Amino acid sequence: MKASELARIVGGKLLGEDVEVRRIAPLEEASEDALVIILDPGRASALRGKKVLCIVSTSEPQDVDYRCAVTVEDAAEAFTRLLAAFNQEPKFTGGGIHELAFVDEAAEIADSAVIRPFAFVDRGAKIGENTVIHPFVYVGVNAEVGDDCVIYPFTFIGYNVRVGNRVILHAGVKLGADGFGFRRTDAGYEKIPQIGTVVIEDDVELGANVCVDRATIGKTVVSKGTKIDNLVQVGHNVKIGKNVVIAGNSGVAGSTIIEDDAVIAGFVGIADHLKVGRGAVITAKAGVHRNLEGGKTYAGFYVTEHMKFLKAYSLMLKLPEIYSKFRAMEARLKELEKMLEDKK
Amino acid sequence: MKASELARIVGGKLLGEDVEVRRIAPLEEASEDALVIILDPGRASALRGKKVLCIVSTSEPQDVDYRCAVTVEDAAEAFTRLLAAFNQEPKFTGGGIHELAFVDEAAEIADSAVIRPFAFVDRGAKIGENTVIHPFVYVGVNAEVGDDCVIYPFTFIGYNVRVGNRVILHAGVKLGADGFGFRRTDAGYEKIPQIGTVVIEDDVELGANVCVDRATIGKTVVSKGTKIDNLVQVGHNVKIGKNVVIAGNSGVAGSTIIEDDAVIAGFVGIADHLKVGRGAVITAKAGVHRNLEGGKTYAGFYVTEHMKFLKAYSLMLKLPEIYSKFRAMEARLKELEKMLEDKK
Amino acid sequence: MKASELARIVGGKLLGEDVEVRRIAPLEEASEDALVIILDPGRASALRGKKVLCIVSTSEPQDVDYRCAVTVEDAAEAFTRLLAAFNQEPKFTGGGIHELAFVDEAAEIADSAVIRPFAFVDRGAKIGENTVIHPFVYVGVNAEVGDDCVIYPFTFIGYNVRVGNRVILHAGVKLGADGFGFRRTDAGYEKIPQIGTVVIEDDVELGANVCVDRATIGKTVVSKGTKIDNLVQVGHNVKIGKNVVIAGNSGVAGSTIIEDDAVIAGFVGIADHLKVGRGAVITAKAGVHRNLEGGKTYAGFYVTEHMKFLKAYSLMLKLPEIYSKFRAMEARLKELEKMLEDKK
Repeated sequence: MKASELARIVGGKLLGEDVEVRRIAPLEEASEDALVIILDPGRASALRGKKVLCIVSTSEPQDVDYRCAVTVEDAAEAFTRLLAAFNQEPKFTGGGIHELAFVDEAAEIADSAVIRPFAFVDRGAKIGENTVIHPFVYVGVNAEVGDDCVIYPFTFIGYNVRVGNRVILHAGVKLGADGFGFRRTDAGYEKIPQIGTVVIEDDVELGANVCVDRATIGKTVVSKGTKIDNLVQVGHNVKIGKNVVIAGNSGVAGSTIIEDDAVIAGFVGIADHLKVGRGAVITAKAGVHRNLEGGKTYAGFYVTEHMKFLKAYSLMLKLPEIYSKFRAMEARLKELEKMLEDKK
Repeated sequence: MKASELARIVGGKLLGEDVEVRRIAPLEEASEDALVIILDPGRASALRGKKVLCIVSTSEPQDVDYRCAVTVEDAAEAFTRLLAAFNQEPKFTGGGIHELAFVDEAAEIADSAVIRPFAFVDRGAKIGENTVIHPFVYVGVNAEVGDDCVIYPFTFIGYNVRVGNRVILHAGVKLGADGFGFRRTDAGYEKIPQIGTVVIEDDVELGANVCVDRATIGKTVVSKGTKIDNLVQVGHNVKIGKNVVIAGNSGVAGSTIIEDDAVIAGFVGIADHLKVGRGAVITAKAGVHRNLEGGKTYAGFYVTEHMKFLKAYSLMLKLPEIYSKFRAMEARLKELEKMLEDKK
Repeated sequence: MKASELARIVGGKLLGEDVEVRRIAPLEEASEDALVIILDPGRASALRGKKVLCIVSTSEPQDVDYRCAVTVEDAAEAFTRLLAAFNQEPKFTGGGIHELAFVDEAAEIADSAVIRPFAFVDRGAKIGENTVIHPFVYVGVNAEVGDDCVIYPFTFIGYNVRVGNRVILHAGVKLGADGFGFRRTDAGYEKIPQIGTVVIEDDVELGANVCVDRATIGKTVVSKGTKIDNLVQVGHNVKIGKNVVIAGNSGVAGSTIIEDDAVIAGFVGIADHLKVGRGAVITAKAGVHRNLEGGKTYAGFYVTEHMKFLKAYSLMLKLPEIYSKFRAMEARLKELEKMLEDKK
């Protein structure tokens, strides 16, 4: 692709030669045959002294030998546009059910949907327009997947589950396994049937091996625009709001409500029946054992406010020296007491 | 279903009209067309002022406009019975091997077992009566699955693995991947072959994406009646006792023994070669680095007794103010010392 | 197998009868019909008073009734050799594409590769010599798998991903799902296309349900000889060095570099854009929020040096008693102050 064409795509200004660009490289792998993007001007020095084919940046690059540069207003936006332009992910379009797929006669498949080999779609299930059902996807009885979705291999969509439009489910997502509900009796644990369902709203993206359990009654919900990273667990009857972000290896236990715009880092565990307020930020590894007010940042093994935890934790690490001083003080105090006692 | 029929199922007493009930709703979604169950009388106030079709409760509902009520002795038991009555999960019965399944000639499939499309059952494997093998299930060479099991899609049952009766394996369970065993040599890590197996006893339920590794030698065992939530890791040669409960995102490292009736919350990590005593309770996020006596409750980054940890942790959070006082005290002490010094 | 043959395999010396050995048992399950290996002489006492068929050990066994013993120089090495000799895992050799597999015409399959039923290999993909592609494996467009690999069921190998030689991917591994990259806009989160790939070098072993995400641009790399346990998450653009070990349930966030020979225990979370130095050891449950110098051992909710953390943590657990003493001291100090005040 010509640099001038790229400049057009990102709405930028071309400086230097109108070179042919074949690939994008990460900044630290800049080379004579690749385009690089300076997202953070503070890291531009990584290019110093290098020969680079083409540089996209908010300002004219300094101290670097480039053949071509494209200046843009918003580097992050340009980055997204360029990645889209160079994306080699194979597209599956045009509709059709592969002869090696199993689609029940009583399933409804939109004309433009692509059902690939070894996909399985059960009776009563519906697949929307332009949606791609990759190999080894299981769509259960009466489940529905909307339009323009990509459902990657090894995804389980249990019976009655609803998936909205423009949803991306990465490899190994499990929607609608039974919630974890048992009743202790004298004979052991008795299963509490989990008869609810799962609803994944529009524009949601779920990472590889994410699990969202079926509600006991009612629905487990992941709302519009929410993005969840790999290996995250979402328990039964959880309600996750709109535009929430949850990073990898985290988990949300049953019936908890996470309001819109919350940001949850990796390895965060949130206990059951809690509420995390709108826009709350929970830092990595935190354990949430209580309701959290929105709009604040939290941290800790059992969460508290972020800065408070950081101060307490750093003092904890100093406990050995503080404790030495404490013991020294104890000795000094004793001495004073003795001295005063002697004076009496 | 008629309310009188429901009353019969739960052994309860019908008050009001014998309405037709089509669905159960969670308490907070009570409405004119759904039945609700009051499990916890303390939450009955959630219904105040609402119109509700039918209420199941241990006592006659107050302050709520209902058309029908069913009073029962044990609400939790009634809940389980009613959920079972309204369960819409498709049943697969009657036996038979789908023509799109792969079943080796040298596998033994009980007449009443259901082998669905795209299931794979290798040579020497046995599948018991009434067991359902869903699409995309892999049953390896000489593996055995007992009677009345449900094996959901994307479950891996490696060679020689034994699964008992009435076992439920949710989507993505992996039984019998190699344990994590390597020997450091000058050339790097050499694999230690993992030649043991996995035994899942009767009445066990394993959540989505749970992994139970093959023993190095001998068996990794999950005993009768134990229930494990999603995304839990069970290492090689682990022995989990009867009626143990393990919540989501937890992990048990190699050769550890967990005795009967233990209750392990979410995100708990248990190190290798340890013993967790009978009925021990381990709270969420705990790290278990030592043997635990049974019958007690534990907590902490490195576990200690629950109440002890809570007290210590709450003081840790107060370290900033305690440390201020400490420094003030140090100053006061210094002053006293000086005063006494001056007097000499 | 005759004991003399086993002695030959491990290069050991046979004492007692040349018995027939049919199986190996764990030390604690030693019996009259099994061979046991004493890896750790300190645990040899577990055999005291038992009847054992055959014992492999670095010295002649004491206080135990055995029919045969094999003495070796290196018990760990003998252990590995014996496990290999008794390994019953079915082998799939001889090459061939099963008629129930889907292999695109434009895929290249080596003659000796085994493609089992319900495997899926897309166009442009290459599978090397002697590699086994198990049922329910997805190999995407232009992906490559080298020689002598074993790819277990439910493994996802996305388009363009490269897998080296002698690689073992356990059930449910996901290579090349999109990295977790989004850009917040007024309309919500916009997806940043993830157009890079994943490279798994030679001799790597990845555990069940491990996820390695596709790079945003460039490559996510797991280098030669590295071993990763079950349910581990590796984010986009992460570079893991050679002969690194990562235990179960851990996770490494985007762009972090882990240098050669690092040892990372279970439930460790490592934040993004960090560097973990060569040979660093990170203990279980640690949270890594900063760069770590190589060659040291680290621990803690937010990591610090291991011994430092242990001392601080144990004092934290004593805070309740320390705080009592502190308050008593405060009272004593006040009393002294009062006493001196009175004297004035």
